[in-house]
Order: sequence, then structure tokens, then C-alpha cells
Amino acid sequence: MTTNEHLFTFEATPVKFGPGAALDTGWELQRLGVKRVMVVADPQVIAREAGQPVLDSIRAAGIDVVTFTAIRVEPTLASLEAAAAAAQDAQPDGFVALGGGSTIDTAKVANLMVSNGGQIMDYVNPPVGGGQRPDRPLRPLLAIPTTSGSGSEATTVAILDLPDLGVKSGISHRLLRPTQAIVDPELSASAPASVTAAAGLDVVCHAIESYLSRPYHTRPRPAGPAERPPYQGSNPVADVWSAWAIERGGRFLRRAVLHAGDTEARGMMMLSATMAGVGFGSAGVHIPHACAYPVAGLRHEYRAPGYPQDHAFVPHGFSVIVTAPAAFRFTYQADPARHEHAAQLLTGRPVRGREALPDALRALMSEVGAPLSLREFGYREADLPALVEGALKQQRLLAVAPVTPTAADLKDILRAALDGA
Amino acid sequence: MTTNEHLFTFEATPVKFGPGAALDTGWELQRLGVKRVMVVADPQVIAREAGQPVLDSIRAAGIDVVTFTAIRVEPTLASLEAAAAAAQDAQPDGFVALGGGSTIDTAKVANLMVSNGGQIMDYVNPPVGGGQRPDRPLRPLLAIPTTSGSGSEATTVAILDLPDLGVKSGISHRLLRPTQAIVDPELSASAPASVTAAAGLDVVCHAIESYLSRPYHTRPRPAGPAERPPYQGSNPVADVWSAWAIERGGRFLRRAVLHAGDTEARGMMMLSATMAGVGFGSAGVHIPHACAYPVAGLRHEYRAPGYPQDHAFVPHGFSVIVTAPAAFRFTYQADPARHEHAAQLLTGRPVRGREALPDALRALMSEVGAPLSLREFGYREADLPALVEGALKQQRLLAVAPVTPTAADLKDILRAALDGA
Repeated sequence: MTTNEHLFTFEATPVKFGPGAALDTGWELQRLGVKRVMVVADPQVIAREAGQPVLDSIRAAGIDVVTFTAIRVEPTLASLEAAAAAAQDAQPDGFVALGGGSTIDTAKVANLMVSNGGQIMDYVNPPVGGGQRPDRPLRPLLAIPTTSGSGSEATTVAILDLPDLGVKSGISHRLLRPTQAIVDPELSASAPASVTAAAGLDVVCHAIESYLSRPYHTRPRPAGPAERPPYQGSNPVADVWSAWAIERGGRFLRRAVLHAGDTEARGMMMLSATMAGVGFGSAGVHIPHACAYPVAGLRHEYRAPGYPQDHAFVPHGFSVIVTAPAAFRFTYQADPARHEHAAQLLTGRPVRGREALPDALRALMSEVGAPLSLREFGYREADLPALVEGALKQQRLLAVAPVTPTAADLKDILRAALDGA
Repeated sequence: MTTNEHLFTFEATPVKFGPGAALDTGWELQRLGVKRVMVVADPQVIAREAGQPVLDSIRAAGIDVVTFTAIRVEPTLASLEAAAAAAQDAQPDGFVALGGGSTIDTAKVANLMVSNGGQIMDYVNPPVGGGQRPDRPLRPLLAIPTTSGSGSEATTVAILDLPDLGVKSGISHRLLRPTQAIVDPELSASAPASVTAAAGLDVVCHAIESYLSRPYHTRPRPAGPAERPPYQGSNPVADVWSAWAIERGGRFLRRAVLHAGDTEARGMMMLSATMAGVGFGSAGVHIPHACAYPVAGLRHEYRAPGYPQDHAFVPHGFSVIVTAPAAFRFTYQADPARHEHAAQLLTGRPVRGREALPDALRALMSEVGAPLSLREFGYREADLPALVEGALKQQRLLAVAPVTPTAADLKDILRAALDGA
């Protein structure tokens, strides 16, 4: 009798896609029976021309609106507690998230807390938090992304920064998945180029990580269905989405960054973000995302152009992609043909060898103006042990890697990334 | 201002896939809060070794079970009314459908009626029925297919035969989509070869129809979001699923038919059925399915080997595929490259020209032992007007065709199919 996993699961948020789709927000809330909604919104989006028609469509449907805009880019425990407290006060029977991944994650957590109670840390993944599972249904949540990056509209995960502990962690449960995603390319038209670049590199990176993740049937079989991890490893269904997002990223990211008015390219990147979210929501992400937690968490000095300047931080997409070339050089041995195929999807031409994928990634990073090395964020050789220690805390992610890295392997990867290799 | 459609929507039933997946049925019902379940099951499946462990897993979870097995293959209004009455009596708080498309459709309608009340004909698509939309949520429904055909586990549609009117019609609303699909290849292992052939040809046919359906942005824009038809036409997301199912069908259907013990091939056909359901649930089916209604509905003399012999009928997959070569010859003009690509996906090699897809389909039909012509079901030249009239009633489907056929076009297609051309 085999002791390996024999099943995989696949679940996709329903998607409505197209220019002007966000104008259906009021109708969608009505359909879901929502009478009083908390709109958790990026304040910049509300201020921009694109945000108001969304609010108008909700009010036109006769739905009470409470807005919450105290979003922190890369949410912290404190910023999420503020959102949860606001939801407790307002007692909405539904949520709209209108913004990037940070905004959608904030809405997910506010919804979780108002529906299930307790403390946020109770639900955070162990060993950082209590790993408690919600046992009551959440309220309807419409996720309306305004950047083309996190894929949070399609995933079961919310990420939070715990600056006191020097780590990032997350809450992850299928009930956190938004009820519906509304993906409207017109909402990303005014995003600055650097935001589009970081977001798009995040898409490409998690799509490649999913595509290269450890195949689901090589995991040990869980003790029961409830023990099946949300990140299951690559499988035939997740592969379709991951491959799709890699290919679209290779074709459209440069155009989306260089020409804000290129609606086709921005639309395709938004759809790729959602579809990559569907893929990695099933398969999972691993080494670059595990490294990204300490890369973003330890060094709070970097200020990215185009992002709010109220606090220093490394945009998620940049923190993820910076170790990707070295990470995929390391994992190449697990399945050379699959790595070469990922590089081929990204470049649109047949490529071969261990350096094919790292080369393709560095070329893309360079063309969209992303930092190429950890040194650009202010890291030095002396920071390596702390970075390795931080990455090693992400065992939930490292378990999905096609080759499980040791501390020494992670140090090699991070050292290479220090100089952009 | 454009008057064409600018949006598409995409929604997939969550899927759990793998050998033994059906043993999680009890756990899944528990997760959904079900305490008393109506198991709507194909009596042959319950009688076979495969069905009992599913019931055992439900009982082991402490859930009350009521079984309903008076399923008619190709449900009629009367057979659906019997199921609805049984559900009214039993008042379950959830459903399991365990069988082929007829079984899953029966469970969908029983669930609709017990949740929303009224008469079945109220909900049937106009002009045949009242076209009423359910306004109350349905109860959780786990769909566990035991054949690899209908894709009903992934769709929002239930089909019914109205012998008194000489038509088939359907009920179609997103609330009919099952809560979860459990796709377990072990359940199809004992299906007879002819059932696997008919079911698999249905998969291939609706995947090709979806892939070739009229692109969503060439439809007129609906008056409002509620008026958007469930069958929206081809779009970038549905295309991924349709192409996937065509390619897998080409690779695995022969093996699945010829070798019942080929678990990989039967598993891939089951997954293809579900994924094609996701694709056509968004894009839609058209000419072959419109013709299939009168082909199956008018001639009640054919008895297919491997199917229950209690009444005569043309298995859905055979009624669909028989006009497909002629239908795709007719639609070729709309987009030759896309037709050739469909043929290439099916055959695994580059092919060109108007006859490429008809040739590939006829080869597959012949190899899996399917009837190749309408004459094999007993039709003659004199039946053409009635067949045309029946197909023309399916305007909801014909609207999705890449070229809208006239009555004369349909007669040409059906005449060609008469002789297997």
C-alpha cells in the first residue's frame, strides 16, 4: 500500500473579467444578499477617478457602505487588528476589497475576525501563531484588485508582517478565499510603472514556483482529509494555470510596465495575476517566497519609487524575484526538462540548460527596472545568517520545494542573490 | 460607444481528484455542515462494489442517509418530478449525486425544487418553460461522477427530456452548480466500453464546440449583468480548459475504451470531463448539441449496447458526436486556424484544411466503436425536416455558434450526418 499522496484538490474563485467589470459591484453584492458592506480600500484608489464609480454602483444598489482605508502596504498585526476592530464596530454583512494584495488580505482578515471571533494570532500559521481553523462561514467578500500582482483575490491566504518577531507569516484556510473576484483592467491603468513591475514579477515568480513545485504524489499521504496542506505541490490542473501565467507574463509584462495605456497588456497581467493565484493556491510557492519573508522583514530602509513613502519596505514582488534566479539554478537538478520548459514559456523560444531560467528572469527584471541584487536593498554578506534563519522559519513553504534546501543551500542561494547572480 | 460584450465570467466547481477520493465524501459533507443527506444514485453504481464505500463513509461521519435510485437515463419531466417529491418528503439538508450526468442532473433539480419550490417547468429555459430564476440558495450538493462524460459536476445546467413535446430542454442557473466535485477514477473502472466511448465522445465534442464558439466580445452587450447568458462564447479562460480537454481526449480516450483497467487513461478522461465542463460552462456548446436534442428525442428505437435496456434511447455522447464532423465543416469558414488547431490538439500533429477536424473526429469515433451516421439510429431522409425543426428550437445554443446556421444549413449538416460524412 502506497504511503504517498493520491489526491489533489483544485478550487478557483469565480472571476468576472473585463474593462468596466467593477461597475457590476453593486449588482454582485445584491446577488449575494448583502445589505451593509464594508469597503476595505486602498486610499489612493478611492482618491483616484477609478474608485468612485465602484462606490457609486454599490450605493445605486441600495446597499449601506462603510469604508475602511487605513490599509498598510504589507499589513502588520497592528494594521490588521485595526481593520478587525472597525469591522466589529460596523458589523457589515459583506465586504468589498478594492486595492492590491495588502488591501485584499486586510479584508480577508477583517472578515475572518468578525465572523469567527478570537485573536488574529490564534489563526496565524504555526509555529508563529496558533494555527486555529475557522469553524464558521465567512461573509461574502468581493475582491477587486487594482494591481496585477498578488493574486490574493484567488487565494486562501492572508500575509502579515510581525515586526516585533522579525518575521512575516500568514493565515491560510479555504474559507478565506474571496467569494468572487472582479478583475477590471481599467483599475490598474493609473498604477505607476514600478508598482506594475513589482506586481508582475510577483506573478511570474509564483507561477514558476508553482510550476516547479514538488509533485503532489511525492508527498506523504496525510492522516486525513483535514490534514491535507493548502499547498499540495504541482498537479495537472494547477500546472495549466501556472504555465498560462508564465507565458502571459513573458509576453505582456514589459508592455504593461512601459506603457500604462496599453490596456491589453495591463488586462492580461491582471488576469495572469488571478490565474497564477489559482495555480499557486493549489500547488504552492517555495524557496523564493520563503526567502522573501526575511528579505522584506529584516531591512526596513529601502524605499521603492512609486510606492507610498510613509514607511520603508521592499515591495513583495521585488523581495520574491531577487532570489529566484539562484533558487531555480539550485532546483534545476530536480527536473531539468521542466525548468527548461518554464524558461521557454517565459521567453517564447526553446532554451536549454541550467542557466536558461536564471538568464530569462534576470533579463526580464532588468527590462522592467527591478533591483537585481540584495545589495540594492542594503544587504551585505554579514546579513546572510539572519536571512537564512528567517527563510528556514518558512518550513510550510520549503516543504513544497522540489529539492528541500538545507541551511547551507539557502546560504548559497542568498549569497548568489547578494550580487544578482 | 461599443455595443458589444466587454466582460466574461468564469466559475469552476471545486474539484477533489484521485483514486479513493470518494472515500472523503463523509468528511466533505461534515465540512459543509450536512446532517441529513439524500444520496441520488445510479442503482447500478450502488449495486457495484464501488458504491458501498461511499455510503459507508457518509454513515461513518454520523450523517443520516436517504437514498434515491429511481434515476432515468436521460431524465424526463416525470422522472425529475419523482426525485423532487422524494426530496420534499425526506427534507435533506444536503445532496450527494453518485452516477453519470443523468444522476447529477436529477440531484440538481431535486435540490432546486426542495430549496425554491414551485413547478419544474417554471424553471425550464424559455420558450419551452417559464425561465424563472431561483432566488433562494440551494443546499450543498456533492457531485461524484461515475462516468467520464457529461461534465455535469462542473456545470450550471440540468437537461430533461419532454417526450410529450418531442424536445429536450434544460434548466440553467449558476446556483445549480454543485458545491464540490469528487472525481475518483476507481468509480469508472467498471463502466462498459460503450458507455466510456459515448461519454468520452461527449467530452471531446463539447470541448471542441466551446473552443470554436463565437468569441464573447462579438456578442451584443447585455442590458444588465443579470441578462448575461450562461453560455458566453469562447474567452481566454474557457479556451484553456477546452483545449486541455480536447488534447487529453485525443490522447486517452482510445485507451480508456479499449482497456477498462487502464486507470491512468480512465482517470484522465474523468478529469477531462470535469475540465471540459468548466470550459463549456463558460463558453457554451452549439450546433452538435442543438442537433443532438432532436436526434435523441425523436427516434426512441435505438438501444445502445452496455446501457440499461429498459427503454430505447440514443446515448447523449453518440447523439452529439454524430453531427460534429459536418457541423465543424460548416463552421470552418468562421476561423480556419482555430479549427485546424482543434484538429491538431485532437490528433497530436499539425494538420491543415477544412477536412482536418471532420477526419480526426471520424477516425476517433470509428476506433472507439461509435455509430458513424444517423442511419445507424434508424433515421432516413424523410426525417430531416423534423430534425431541423427540433434543432432550430435550440436558439439558446445556436446563438453561440461561430456562424449562425439557417434552416437550410442545418438540413445540409444533418443530411451529411445521415451518411456519416
